[in-house]
Amino acid sequence: MGTPRRRRSANVIAAQRRKAGQAPGTPIYAGAPREGQAAIRWISYGPDAIAEGDGAASRAPVVWTNLVGVHDAAAVRDLCAAYGVHPLAVEDALNPAGRPKAELHGDALFVAVRVLDVKDTALEYEQISFVLGAGWLLSLQERTGDVFEPVRQRLRTATGRIRGRGADYLLHGLLDAVVDRVFVALELLEDRTDGLERAVAADADASAIPQAVHALRSDLMGVRRALWPLREVVAELLRTEPPLVRDESLPYFRDLLDHVLQALDVVDAARDRLVGVLELHLAMVSHRMNEVMKTLTIVATIFIPLTFVAGIYGMNFQVMPELGWRFGYPAALVAMAVLAAGMVELMRRRGWWS
Amino acid sequence: MGTPRRRRSANVIAAQRRKAGQAPGTPIYAGAPREGQAAIRWISYGPDAIAEGDGAASRAPVVWTNLVGVHDAAAVRDLCAAYGVHPLAVEDALNPAGRPKAELHGDALFVAVRVLDVKDTALEYEQISFVLGAGWLLSLQERTGDVFEPVRQRLRTATGRIRGRGADYLLHGLLDAVVDRVFVALELLEDRTDGLERAVAADADASAIPQAVHALRSDLMGVRRALWPLREVVAELLRTEPPLVRDESLPYFRDLLDHVLQALDVVDAARDRLVGVLELHLAMVSHRMNEVMKTLTIVATIFIPLTFVAGIYGMNFQVMPELGWRFGYPAALVAMAVLAAGMVELMRRRGWWS
Amino acid sequence: MGTPRRRRSANVIAAQRRKAGQAPGTPIYAGAPREGQAAIRWISYGPDAIAEGDGAASRAPVVWTNLVGVHDAAAVRDLCAAYGVHPLAVEDALNPAGRPKAELHGDALFVAVRVLDVKDTALEYEQISFVLGAGWLLSLQERTGDVFEPVRQRLRTATGRIRGRGADYLLHGLLDAVVDRVFVALELLEDRTDGLERAVAADADASAIPQAVHALRSDLMGVRRALWPLREVVAELLRTEPPLVRDESLPYFRDLLDHVLQALDVVDAARDRLVGVLELHLAMVSHRMNEVMKTLTIVATIFIPLTFVAGIYGMNFQVMPELGWRFGYPAALVAMAVLAAGMVELMRRRGWWS
Amino acid sequence: MGTPRRRRSANVIAAQRRKAGQAPGTPIYAGAPREGQAAIRWISYGPDAIAEGDGAASRAPVVWTNLVGVHDAAAVRDLCAAYGVHPLAVEDALNPAGRPKAELHGDALFVAVRVLDVKDTALEYEQISFVLGAGWLLSLQERTGDVFEPVRQRLRTATGRIRGRGADYLLHGLLDAVVDRVFVALELLEDRTDGLERAVAADADASAIPQAVHALRSDLMGVRRALWPLREVVAELLRTEPPLVRDESLPYFRDLLDHVLQALDVVDAARDRLVGVLELHLAMVSHRMNEVMKTLTIVATIFIPLTFVAGIYGMNFQVMPELGWRFGYPAALVAMAVLAAGMVELMRRRGWWS
Amino acid sequence: MGTPRRRRSANVIAAQRRKAGQAPGTPIYAGAPREGQAAIRWISYGPDAIAEGDGAASRAPVVWTNLVGVHDAAAVRDLCAAYGVHPLAVEDALNPAGRPKAELHGDALFVAVRVLDVKDTALEYEQISFVLGAGWLLSLQERTGDVFEPVRQRLRTATGRIRGRGADYLLHGLLDAVVDRVFVALELLEDRTDGLERAVAADADASAIPQAVHALRSDLMGVRRALWPLREVVAELLRTEPPLVRDESLPYFRDLLDHVLQALDVVDAARDRLVGVLELHLAMVSHRMNEVMKTLTIVATIFIPLTFVAGIYGMNFQVMPELGWRFGYPAALVAMAVLAAGMVELMRRRGWWS
Repeated sequence: MGTPRRRRSANVIAAQRRKAGQAPGTPIYAGAPREGQAAIRWISYGPDAIAEGDGAASRAPVVWTNLVGVHDAAAVRDLCAAYGVHPLAVEDALNPAGRPKAELHGDALFVAVRVLDVKDTALEYEQISFVLGAGWLLSLQERTGDVFEPVRQRLRTATGRIRGRGADYLLHGLLDAVVDRVFVALELLEDRTDGLERAVAADADASAIPQAVHALRSDLMGVRRALWPLREVVAELLRTEPPLVRDESLPYFRDLLDHVLQALDVVDAARDRLVGVLELHLAMVSHRMNEVMKTLTIVATIFIPLTFVAGIYGMNFQVMPELGWRFGYPAALVAMAVLAAGMVELMRRRGWWS
Repeated sequence: MGTPRRRRSANVIAAQRRKAGQAPGTPIYAGAPREGQAAIRWISYGPDAIAEGDGAASRAPVVWTNLVGVHDAAAVRDLCAAYGVHPLAVEDALNPAGRPKAELHGDALFVAVRVLDVKDTALEYEQISFVLGAGWLLSLQERTGDVFEPVRQRLRTATGRIRGRGADYLLHGLLDAVVDRVFVALELLEDRTDGLERAVAADADASAIPQAVHALRSDLMGVRRALWPLREVVAELLRTEPPLVRDESLPYFRDLLDHVLQALDVVDAARDRLVGVLELHLAMVSHRMNEVMKTLTIVATIFIPLTFVAGIYGMNFQVMPELGWRFGYPAALVAMAVLAAGMVELMRRRGWWS
Repeated sequence: MGTPRRRRSANVIAAQRRKAGQAPGTPIYAGAPREGQAAIRWISYGPDAIAEGDGAASRAPVVWTNLVGVHDAAAVRDLCAAYGVHPLAVEDALNPAGRPKAELHGDALFVAVRVLDVKDTALEYEQISFVLGAGWLLSLQERTGDVFEPVRQRLRTATGRIRGRGADYLLHGLLDAVVDRVFVALELLEDRTDGLERAVAADADASAIPQAVHALRSDLMGVRRALWPLREVVAELLRTEPPLVRDESLPYFRDLLDHVLQALDVVDAARDRLVGVLELHLAMVSHRMNEVMKTLTIVATIFIPLTFVAGIYGMNFQVMPELGWRFGYPAALVAMAVLAAGMVELMRRRGWWS
Repeated sequence: MGTPRRRRSANVIAAQRRKAGQAPGTPIYAGAPREGQAAIRWISYGPDAIAEGDGAASRAPVVWTNLVGVHDAAAVRDLCAAYGVHPLAVEDALNPAGRPKAELHGDALFVAVRVLDVKDTALEYEQISFVLGAGWLLSLQERTGDVFEPVRQRLRTATGRIRGRGADYLLHGLLDAVVDRVFVALELLEDRTDGLERAVAADADASAIPQAVHALRSDLMGVRRALWPLREVVAELLRTEPPLVRDESLPYFRDLLDHVLQALDVVDAARDRLVGVLELHLAMVSHRMNEVMKTLTIVATIFIPLTFVAGIYGMNFQVMPELGWRFGYPAALVAMAVLAAGMVELMRRRGWWS
Repeated sequence: MGTPRRRRSANVIAAQRRKAGQAPGTPIYAGAPREGQAAIRWISYGPDAIAEGDGAASRAPVVWTNLVGVHDAAAVRDLCAAYGVHPLAVEDALNPAGRPKAELHGDALFVAVRVLDVKDTALEYEQISFVLGAGWLLSLQERTGDVFEPVRQRLRTATGRIRGRGADYLLHGLLDAVVDRVFVALELLEDRTDGLERAVAADADASAIPQAVHALRSDLMGVRRALWPLREVVAELLRTEPPLVRDESLPYFRDLLDHVLQALDVVDAARDRLVGVLELHLAMVSHRMNEVMKTLTIVATIFIPLTFVAGIYGMNFQVMPELGWRFGYPAALVAMAVLAAGMVELMRRRGWWS
């Protein structure tokens, strides 16, 4: 059914199989094949000035170079070579199904995170890698997206604090933009959970509820699998020593960790609710089934004996004295009524009419 | 159904989305919009004197300033600026859906807790923030409430120990008042659990029990989610170094931690009971269903064969010798009675009449 | 149903609500109100001598003072004041619903434990507090009980090791007596579990089993909640530094910890068994239900078609050639028998007669 | 049903109750009473010589003394006194229901383990204690058994490594023999699990499967409860300092730990399988039940309406025009056939014939 | 059913029983008996040269000796003796059911891992041991396989980095090849999970689904049991000190650890999905059952009363006035129709036609 989680597992396996037998650090793109060249765009800024352009940039106080299209292995290789990035980091950047992580290679920090996006109520995942050096930051994306646009706007605004701080603060801003996206997805999933809860309460279209719960849980698990390593990545950043991540930036990364933890709390609360919703649905289905069974039993218990009595007087024996009685027919009807009333009374005593 | 947990998740998401794209530390109110100005009231006290007033206060031995209405971002900003509070702490104080925490910013301690209140048997949550400095304490509330009233009474009474101690002891008193509120909510939830247990035992109105269990569990989870971070906050306070939290105050904070742990124990015991109650309910429903099925089966098993026999002698074949027998009719009745008795005996042997 | 666990949760909540708004350390009794004065009795002993009496005692080598009736707050206050006990410890001793703990206040150790007792097959809990100082031990009980009687006997016997050792060894003896009581309760619960297992195996009175499992599990959980903090208390005692707990007493406290762990093992084993018993019961109920359904289905599947055939020849159409046949009736009977045999054969093939 | 686990819990409780009120370290036998004197046999050996005998032995390079019959408290006391064993260790050795442990008392190491044995497909447990000193090892058994026989054989063979090493290596050999026994029991349990899996697949004698799963799980839990503390005991031995356990013996104890972990892995795998087997069984029972219900429903749904039609034309109204029609009877039959075919078609469309 | 997990447990038990009573370190083959001699082949290489051959090799810069057929205990013993491998390591290498581990013996590192292979959609496991020394590496396999072939190719290619690095880098390459194999198996299992999910959605052949889930979960658990110790082995290698594992190789082992963690993630995601699939299947089966029951109840509830009415007018009482009425028959039919319509209306109101 194309849930994100399955697609991701499949991607991981496919990527590993493509790389099987290669020496580690071989700069080969491990994702599904794609066309087109990578687009590279840099922004170089300091407290007083900002410049933007395509291709490679001179090293201003801080240079942020964003590459879109990691499938263009040559472009990634060239860009990374220009900044002296470690081969294993390049390999990781080229693997869109890699494990999110923050790892120090020499004097540069490699960070990979999974970004969550919503496309027409479906969740999409993208791997984005960062390499943080002294005064420079690379960001490598698979697809063109607008996740970093708010940060660009803040950079272009001269008044923001961001221009006066280093590349580590920029990394914080970009990761914060990534986490902001998660909350958009969470809103969608909360709405779906609300809808399910209302549907269960209304008992509407009961047969579709288990499948909806299954699909929603798959999506929640997918978000959780994207968020959990993000938590480890930010915690790792908090342990990174200066000068890559400076002490004055630590409160901001702690703040970021807080946001990730909040998102995880929301996911866990939604999963708990979902378990409750399914339990409630099953209890209601079971209650409904009991009602149905009780109705059947009541009807059958009353009418089957009556029908038997009617069957007796429908027999064709030549000698059946009752048949000749004057009030035989009314007597039989009265007997049946009494029998039925007795049955009803018995069931009432067993509490079947509650 | 408007359970507190969902409302909280929704608030968290809404707050994050309002703040998306903002530089961290931007002092913008993140809660749902509200009208009106904040109300600020201070109490300044020492062992021998106490003064109260509105607005800003001079720094007596200890000054406690309480602000009601964090939606008035300007008032919060001004008050915090007067005490030199860190921008990230101000941002957290302005976010009524933030994560409870205790964090040192410079020489002031920021503490945020979630307060639980009962309004007509419904649970309500409010975020209250504290900033503890040397000789001063700020408390920032969303709504007017009477949770701190007992502490004010103790301050106004000259004899109490509280006047002779520092701002950290005052913080302890305010947090203790917050925890006292939790027990009011727990009493309500215990009563509901007792009611459910009685309802299950009485088998009354069985169809409503799963929904009641679901709602009660949601509330218990909400309380747990409010208490759990409180535990971490108090544990963090115990680790805070002097002079903000002095050694002589530590036994009182340990005592506070004890109260939080007791409340968590009560919540966990209630959840365990709830699981047991639902299990018991389902077992009783299942037992009831078995009774119904057994009744149906007994009735059908006895009467269906009898009806068949009656059906045979109701056939209109011209040559059916039994029909002409003198004692055909009584013989048929006796045969039916024997058949029924055999069926009953068979079922008795299978233990269906236990 | 008055399970111990609920009563305890209710007590905890009631105690907290009585204390709400009080300054911490206020010596107010937090339990349910009671009448009567406390009874205080001391035993003072050394290797060679022993003396007993009511009221306060001079400080012999070791003095053990036992107070019964913590609801008499004045007596508790006076006794504690005589030994210089910390106000927070006094407050804890006055709260019969407090959390078991071991805490150092100044140069005295406060220990609170929950004691389990069996009264006519029902479990009862009592909070007992101890204060251990240099050469003295206070024990504070709610109700008169005989839990400490064996220790008194050992003290009065001149030959025992206990007279020659310090107050910490006496504390060990008293706690050991508390743990010995737990095993009496465990024996009772084991017997009830055995009874349940036999009842399930015999399938006797099936409808009562879920409730019995629920009640037994509640009791086991209650015992567990009493034992678990005891484990922490003893572990804390093992970490306490000399001179309050001397090195030579450590092996005995380790031995005590072993007994607590054994009791916890027994509780956990019983809970595991209980889960198995309930599963087994549900599987047997489900199997029984299947048997019932199969019987119904077999009877109905055989006789409903036969009855239909009989119904056809009971129709009153004027032109029904079969009715005039000579061997119409036997032919119909044979046809019915063949139909029934076919049905039986079909069901036999489906394995319904296993 | 006499599962080992229950017997053990009962033994633990009985032992604790027998010891209640006794001073710790009192050398009283805590097991069920037994007759007969203990049998003591020693083996004294060095690289070049070996001697065996009954009773007490002189201290050769290494002396191993094995006592069978710990119920003979006097013999245990005398033997332990001869080696200066700590009273608490003696008490533990006399308690066949004690907790497995490894504890240093002075310069001797006390080790207690639970030994698993198979007697006619039933599992039996025995507590064996060891005391390891410098150059001597005591082993104390409850019953005569052959678990140590392979070690005796290795000692008697001049060529083995074991003669040239110390008492710690001998302890390793004896514990290894204990673990070897566990695998005999595991083989039996694996066979029973295999049998159950085959029985479920063959759907044979379904009603006995839940009870068999329950019994097998009880046995597996019993093995787990015996193995788990053994793991802790060996890990504790690895932390014991020289000279009691020498560095050169550590690889062998690590090897032993490996075997214990392997056994635990096998137990855990068997428990996982058992859960799967029970789930599979329940799913198959539920599927069978559905089949039965479907059959009943199909038969009833087809024939009940037909019987009703036949009933209509069996009514005795004097004016029923159809009864006089020439082709009334065949028409009625055809109508019934059409009705039945329609019902069948409807059910086919709902997928009931898959 | 021959799942890998059972076979492995059985192998572990069999191996331990074969070794029971043996002194540790005895070089005896513990696997199932096999025929044939071991095949030994070495590759000796440096940056500029490479040589291959059978049997023993001189010690070039790096020598890798691969032995196939560990059942040939003599060959294993001789090879290990030539490199001075510790007896316990030899014993472990000879046990194909041993526990995966990485252990330092003297100046050589022993590593055992479980290799996963796919043979015609069935999973197979093989134990492979490595011994890493200074400049040499032994690898010991049970069966001929092609898992190391890619590494051999990389060695033979002069341009690869692998020739210029040490034996630790070679070990990394071989372990990486082992992990690559796991992803082949995972792809197969993902496909089976996809197939199951589709089958459940299509409700096809429902009775086989629980068994398929059971088998697939067994396989996933088997993979997990093979991967989990691999994780520990690689983590252990990362802690190994130089010179056996050099600092410059650490990033590659970290990369390897990453791959193992990714595989574990995939396994865990598949297990989660499987739980969801089974839940969904059971919910659909239960829904189907409810549909069936509802149909039966509707048909029976409508027709049983009607049949009773028909039965009444089929009675043969001589005095039944209705029978003589002119419109008795149509009146009866109309009454029945009204009765049926009332029943339908009642059921519609209860929401049975949703």
